Amino acid sequence: MKKVRIGLIGTGYIGRCHAIAYAQAPTVFNLKGELVREMLAEVNPELASAQAATLGFNRSTGDWRELVADENIDVVDICAPNFLHKEMALEAIRHGKHVYSEKPLALDAADAEEMVRAAEKAGVKTLVGFNYMKNPTSQLAKEIIARGEIGEVVHFYGTHNEDYLADPMTPLDWHCQKALAGLGALGDLAAHIVNMAHYLVGNIDEVSGDMMTVIKQRPDPKNRSLMRDVENEDQASALLRFANGAHGVIETSRIACGSKMGLTYVVTGTKGSLRYTQERMAELALYSHDDPAGRQGFKTILTGPAHPDYAAFCISAGHGIGFNDQKTVEVRDLINGIAAGDRMWPDFAEGLQVSKVLEAIAVSAAERRWMKV
Amino acid sequence: MKKVRIGLIGTGYIGRCHAIAYAQAPTVFNLKGELVREMLAEVNPELASAQAATLGFNRSTGDWRELVADENIDVVDICAPNFLHKEMALEAIRHGKHVYSEKPLALDAADAEEMVRAAEKAGVKTLVGFNYMKNPTSQLAKEIIARGEIGEVVHFYGTHNEDYLADPMTPLDWHCQKALAGLGALGDLAAHIVNMAHYLVGNIDEVSGDMMTVIKQRPDPKNRSLMRDVENEDQASALLRFANGAHGVIETSRIACGSKMGLTYVVTGTKGSLRYTQERMAELALYSHDDPAGRQGFKTILTGPAHPDYAAFCISAGHGIGFNDQKTVEVRDLINGIAAGDRMWPDFAEGLQVSKVLEAIAVSAAERRWMKV
Amino acid sequence: MKKVRIGLIGTGYIGRCHAIAYAQAPTVFNLKGELVREMLAEVNPELASAQAATLGFNRSTGDWRELVADENIDVVDICAPNFLHKEMALEAIRHGKHVYSEKPLALDAADAEEMVRAAEKAGVKTLVGFNYMKNPTSQLAKEIIARGEIGEVVHFYGTHNEDYLADPMTPLDWHCQKALAGLGALGDLAAHIVNMAHYLVGNIDEVSGDMMTVIKQRPDPKNRSLMRDVENEDQASALLRFANGAHGVIETSRIACGSKMGLTYVVTGTKGSLRYTQERMAELALYSHDDPAGRQGFKTILTGPAHPDYAAFCISAGHGIGFNDQKTVEVRDLINGIAAGDRMWPDFAEGLQVSKVLEAIAVSAAERRWMKV
Amino acid sequence: MKKVRIGLIGTGYIGRCHAIAYAQAPTVFNLKGELVREMLAEVNPELASAQAATLGFNRSTGDWRELVADENIDVVDICAPNFLHKEMALEAIRHGKHVYSEKPLALDAADAEEMVRAAEKAGVKTLVGFNYMKNPTSQLAKEIIARGEIGEVVHFYGTHNEDYLADPMTPLDWHCQKALAGLGALGDLAAHIVNMAHYLVGNIDEVSGDMMTVIKQRPDPKNRSLMRDVENEDQASALLRFANGAHGVIETSRIACGSKMGLTYVVTGTKGSLRYTQERMAELALYSHDDPAGRQGFKTILTGPAHPDYAAFCISAGHGIGFNDQKTVEVRDLINGIAAGDRMWPDFAEGLQVSKVLEAIAVSAAERRWMKV
Repeated sequence: MKKVRIGLIGTGYIGRCHAIAYAQAPTVFNLKGELVREMLAEVNPELASAQAATLGFNRSTGDWRELVADENIDVVDICAPNFLHKEMALEAIRHGKHVYSEKPLALDAADAEEMVRAAEKAGVKTLVGFNYMKNPTSQLAKEIIARGEIGEVVHFYGTHNEDYLADPMTPLDWHCQKALAGLGALGDLAAHIVNMAHYLVGNIDEVSGDMMTVIKQRPDPKNRSLMRDVENEDQASALLRFANGAHGVIETSRIACGSKMGLTYVVTGTKGSLRYTQERMAELALYSHDDPAGRQGFKTILTGPAHPDYAAFCISAGHGIGFNDQKTVEVRDLINGIAAGDRMWPDFAEGLQVSKVLEAIAVSAAERRWMKV
Repeated sequence: MKKVRIGLIGTGYIGRCHAIAYAQAPTVFNLKGELVREMLAEVNPELASAQAATLGFNRSTGDWRELVADENIDVVDICAPNFLHKEMALEAIRHGKHVYSEKPLALDAADAEEMVRAAEKAGVKTLVGFNYMKNPTSQLAKEIIARGEIGEVVHFYGTHNEDYLADPMTPLDWHCQKALAGLGALGDLAAHIVNMAHYLVGNIDEVSGDMMTVIKQRPDPKNRSLMRDVENEDQASALLRFANGAHGVIETSRIACGSKMGLTYVVTGTKGSLRYTQERMAELALYSHDDPAGRQGFKTILTGPAHPDYAAFCISAGHGIGFNDQKTVEVRDLINGIAAGDRMWPDFAEGLQVSKVLEAIAVSAAERRWMKV
Repeated sequence: MKKVRIGLIGTGYIGRCHAIAYAQAPTVFNLKGELVREMLAEVNPELASAQAATLGFNRSTGDWRELVADENIDVVDICAPNFLHKEMALEAIRHGKHVYSEKPLALDAADAEEMVRAAEKAGVKTLVGFNYMKNPTSQLAKEIIARGEIGEVVHFYGTHNEDYLADPMTPLDWHCQKALAGLGALGDLAAHIVNMAHYLVGNIDEVSGDMMTVIKQRPDPKNRSLMRDVENEDQASALLRFANGAHGVIETSRIACGSKMGLTYVVTGTKGSLRYTQERMAELALYSHDDPAGRQGFKTILTGPAHPDYAAFCISAGHGIGFNDQKTVEVRDLINGIAAGDRMWPDFAEGLQVSKVLEAIAVSAAERRWMKV
Repeated sequence: MKKVRIGLIGTGYIGRCHAIAYAQAPTVFNLKGELVREMLAEVNPELASAQAATLGFNRSTGDWRELVADENIDVVDICAPNFLHKEMALEAIRHGKHVYSEKPLALDAADAEEMVRAAEKAGVKTLVGFNYMKNPTSQLAKEIIARGEIGEVVHFYGTHNEDYLADPMTPLDWHCQKALAGLGALGDLAAHIVNMAHYLVGNIDEVSGDMMTVIKQRPDPKNRSLMRDVENEDQASALLRFANGAHGVIETSRIACGSKMGLTYVVTGTKGSLRYTQERMAELALYSHDDPAGRQGFKTILTGPAHPDYAAFCISAGHGIGFNDQKTVEVRDLINGIAAGDRMWPDFAEGLQVSKVLEAIAVSAAERRWMKV
């Protein structure tokens, strides 16, 4: 079986989740290639070495450039901060590596476009970590829509709200700095809900956006008595027009008190509708207008082995999968894509399309007018 | 005790709910005036007479002009179709009557403005039937916000979605005709959520709207093989900017499959947030960011005697009040306002303000640009 | 139209709810008789007179014996404390009055039996205030079961939990005294869930019960430093065997922290199941095992005009009815039963049957063995 | 670091979940020993070999006796059918192996007792797979109770309901045969909820049980026209008395239409209460009676890094863990218990205690009387 040797850059929050997914994927799925946790890069050799031991990687380095150039690496997995995605990806592509990158793909659409072009030219495969669409429940939503069970989609409302910066005394970090993060809540969170809208409904053509930096200054992390400017938006909203004619709205916030994992959507069709919240990731509510009078209502479907990719984790319904299991489905797509040529999606092109939508929202908000994506 | 003699025009859907509220209000509340169900008007004398017997009114007439001119009427209650509100209200005001009108106040803001001016000039009191804000649960939401329990409001998301026209084979009725209804879902449904936004957050300054007539033709009610044009919107959405700086979004639909009474709101503040759906009208979810780590979460408060206006119905918590009970609170405000000079709100001025917002959304959608209200 | 003249005894908590129901019933329903709020009795003439004015009754008295003897009364409605039910009912029956009594019918089954015999002998009609089964949602549950939509019922779990005595410092009142209340939570609360079990599943044949007085002493209401004994149970549970072979469990508590109106049931059949909680009185969850694989789940049906007795209150689904509206359905049954001979149920015989079950549970708990009802 | 070499017997449903947990545990947790997936046994060498490759084990065998005797095995993990647990465990213990067994520990309490004695005598460590108590949410429930946040526990209601045998045409399998399964729903499902009751409240002293075989015959799996007897209960219920004085009820069913993972509990204390359902495994609802009037209600706490063992999977709240992650916590306890002497619980003694309760319920149901455990 063909080996797929992973080179992981970055082992913070999301890098660790990748590592867990790598650890369990070969046991959960009958992968079409042999997943090898080959090499790991961190900011210095000591941390890299320690993390390699902890996360089960064969080798490590304190220099990511060494990793992307290593001839025994097939895929470079980028879990570094946003502002490094582009440079790392381009270097990896230059060395002929396939690239698996966390979202957002880049700080802006122009950078993302450069990355797409480079990957296309080099003929390497790409994948972006929009893991929420890998949840069996959202795959079920897709299936229900694709089969026409709710008719033609006429409306989409989606959010990705969290509250990690709700406290105004939380110090300023890289999320709040344009040079490091690009957009604020839009880039960090809304990327997911835009991808979900694409997945469930189709591409977005036009937007009218608005955004707001609610907490305008935050304490400097090193000197808490010094207040520094927040450079990007805490919350944003946008009216959407989809290419297929559906209308919609998305909203995002990083200060939405009480929303811990507030990726939610309501998809309305001409014959039914769907409701979902990631905080109850095992449940999809389906309403069918064709149900008999007096027996209509939202049916709470609990994800189980009758739904896509669930049975690999457990053969009984309702037992539940978790966040890292979504990543494991994503890793399955990565390995099978590289080892066996299976479709890998969302790829860099989708990452770019998401960036274009987010950028259009930001520009629309600044110029206070509708924008074509 | 001062008598408040009611003249009710229209006994269809909502007129009947008013009648039920009139019947129970004196038993539920210690009213400051004596409520008299004096006279009722319907489209012909026979129906009027039958309905007066059923609904407990002393007298009846087949001519609403007779009712508004009757010297033994103190308040004219307008439950006729939207396109008649203006004419009836102006006539009633001309006869010096106080006016209690169902929403929307008029077909457009210009008409509403004329009504406000007439009432002001005549010195009569007015009330508009935005009953959802009378629910003890929403009064509790208002109390929580007013006391600063969720900090400063920074975001409002609200909907009023229903699905009464979701079936494309439902024949065209007056709701779909501009001359009779004015706006579509915006006028019929969103009026409520705009009022709620005003009540909970404050006035709306600017909007960017979008709208869509999803089902472009419907069968003629008399000749089902003949298809006729739907003249107003099935669904609409708008970005909002409030006068106090908060941002927001409202949405409305009359084809939102599965939403039976989909008035919902999420109010986000700097220290907490509130979630509400009218379909669970006894529940308000409150999140306080100040709760200790590990004990944070949305608390589902079940309305009870500790909340405004609940104990008049039942002194035990969680026993529940219904839609007509909201109207009964509204009727209490009407009687006490007229008999004892208590504040009556939402009055025509608020009805006008709501119309202005709705109209701004419609114009904004047509012209695809932000509009001042 | 035949007059049905009401004589109401007691205008505390539940008496007031009756009065509200009397006020609105003629407007809500096309009653088959003319409901007359004729006379009201309270503990003294002054209170009686004041309450008659407030609650819309024609006459009043400070002596209930005068009321039950009054020749212009057709129905005596007993809303006095439990320990008076028997004496009042027997007196009313002696005067040939129909009797509408609040639950529990009597302090024990022997008393209830005496009341049933007296009513039968006198040929008067009776009704007991088990209002929760009048909710359209529970009527829908009954309809679903009766039509076989969940197959044969094999299990019933029901509770009636509240927390009105959860605080150990709440002073002792009549609920805690055997001579005044009879049983504790069983009599006050579980009476409802036993009636609901009868209504939905059928009669209960055998029980094995357990009960517990958790807070053994409470402050004297007049002298808070004096502690007095609580004489009956705070919570109880029982295994059930129904006559039709189904098994079940009921539980009750008056100290169940957080349960404000905790009447709940889960009915399991061979082909489906139902879930209900009175705190969300507009919702019934229905599961059908025949739904296709991958589309199974509990469907939340929101009560509307397609369901029994809802449309009389409002013709739109999901708008919601309240506790007093349940009582209004009950009053409709009362008036139509007396004026037109319609079936009146739950009658005293059912009240007795409920008492027998509750008594069997109490005896079973004391003797620690299964009991036949 | 000390090696802990696993020998896994059985790779069906639950064995596969163990294997997934073994795969990810070293990456999720900083284990105190080196987990080695050493050997795997299946019913024949071919299957064993294939599964070893799939599940990442070094060696395999078609004979479990070879595995338990292998000198390079430290722990025997028994995921074989219930009727084999005892024999396998005793053999493993005889060879001085630590034993990790799935529930129920044995077919009856006598067998379980023999196993406990053998393990004690041999001085080996034991662990039973009651994984639901390892969920961070249920660990949070334990923490809340232990800290007295809901006062003294006075009542416990728990269920473990599923519907895997709800369809009467599902053929008879080993679950329905006494010789292979022992008890029915009690042994297969209720074992979990009894363990949970022990964990959250304490030991159970006395029970009064009832049980029912609803579907008395099922098709033979090989000849569907032949009907065979179901030998154990489909559903059971029991009144409980805890050693600490609390009362309670547990129920279980394998034909509870709609319950997919119906492990639920409600714990009522003198100052608050908790509600949980495994189908929403990330949520615990907490009610505190000390909250101010008008602000009381159940707070839905979404599990996050502030709660036990969550942060190892993901450092953001609300992202969610799954069923296999519970097993991963269990595996962490296993490895740290064996490598570093950390407490391993629930051990065989607890497995025995659970068996005693289940057996007491079954005997109580048969003899229709209260039983001491």
